[in-house]
Amino acid sequence: GAPAGGPGFGGFPGQQQDPLYGYFTAVAGQDGQISAEELQQCLTQANFSGGYKPFNLETCRLMINMLDRDMSCTMGFNEFKELWAVLNGWKQHFMSIDRDQSGTVDSQEMQQAVNSMGYRLSPQTMTCIVKRFSSQGKITFDDYVACCVKLRTLTGLFRKRDQAGQGMAAFAYDDFIQCTMST
Amino acid sequence: GAPAGGPGFGGFPGQQQDPLYGYFTAVAGQDGQISAEELQQCLTQANFSGGYKPFNLETCRLMINMLDRDMSCTMGFNEFKELWAVLNGWKQHFMSIDRDQSGTVDSQEMQQAVNSMGYRLSPQTMTCIVKRFSSQGKITFDDYVACCVKLRTLTGLFRKRDQAGQGMAAFAYDDFIQCTMST
Repeated sequence: GAPAGGPGFGGFPGQQQDPLYGYFTAVAGQDGQISAEELQQCLTQANFSGGYKPFNLETCRLMINMLDRDMSCTMGFNEFKELWAVLNGWKQHFMSIDRDQSGTVDSQEMQQAVNSMGYRLSPQTMTCIVKRFSSQGKITFDDYVACCVKLRTLTGLFRKRDQAGQGMAAFAYDDFIQCTMST
Repeated sequence: GAPAGGPGFGGFPGQQQDPLYGYFTAVAGQDGQISAEELQQCLTQANFSGGYKPFNLETCRLMINMLDRDMSCTMGFNEFKELWAVLNGWKQHFMSIDRDQSGTVDSQEMQQAVNSMGYRLSPQTMTCIVKRFSSQGKITFDDYVACCVKLRTLTGLFRKRDQAGQGMAAFAYDDFIQCTMST
């Protein structure tokens, strides 16, 4: 169980209380860990998806997976803090791409965004990616996040296996399935 | 636009009307094509997910992607018919695994199911997969479908690149990202 007490409400002597900690304990509940479902509820309430639509559960799983070093499928406070920072960065980036403030970005804006993150991809691959993460040509914030998380994770997995840095990597079947099914 | 008229309601002379066609046109609406959102609505109404919970949109996108030969991101009638058959097969398989009829399967039942589909995977990879597609140790029907679709697609993509059939395949970075980001 996590210790009780939010910001400005007790805390332990000599321990600096992080302002985000009270929020974390409220979301995490009894077990002191945030599951994908709890994260979804929390991001929906914080209106990260815009229009108070439920934040994509799939994206929540991807994010927990990205930061899940102990393979618990849940998130402790330090991981939550890291996610919160990353997520706010992505939200700012997303809002800067979404020039008309519609809450969604279009294919072209998305392609520019992926380019500006430094990924070198062919136009065909870029088109596939954008199609995959859009609904009726529009990409919402949670789909954008899912796309960023997957690109980051898959590029990292590829690089580990491309030790010569030649842009080519060999995978055994089991390794390929493990890498790709868990992202 | 798709021609009007459901089963038993007109149809064209000399043309056999498929009983599923009327249902398809009702779901597809004006444009005669089913989008991921329309498929989600349709599968939710047919209560494929059980308990009348919304069917996972992500799974709908995966399914359309699996059958999408013309890269339109939507589904025509023939693709819908094919999906309907595949989906009913998966539903039956899922119900046969779910011995206590709880509507979800547990990790062990899921591992047995994946094994029985003929995939040869290490216990570690199997554990990763099951963790990735479960919520609190339980796998719902839509997560099970997402898992089946991904495994099938990724195994197919791997085999195409493993022409010697040695269980090893080399990927260029762009190809790797295209394969893995679009599944």
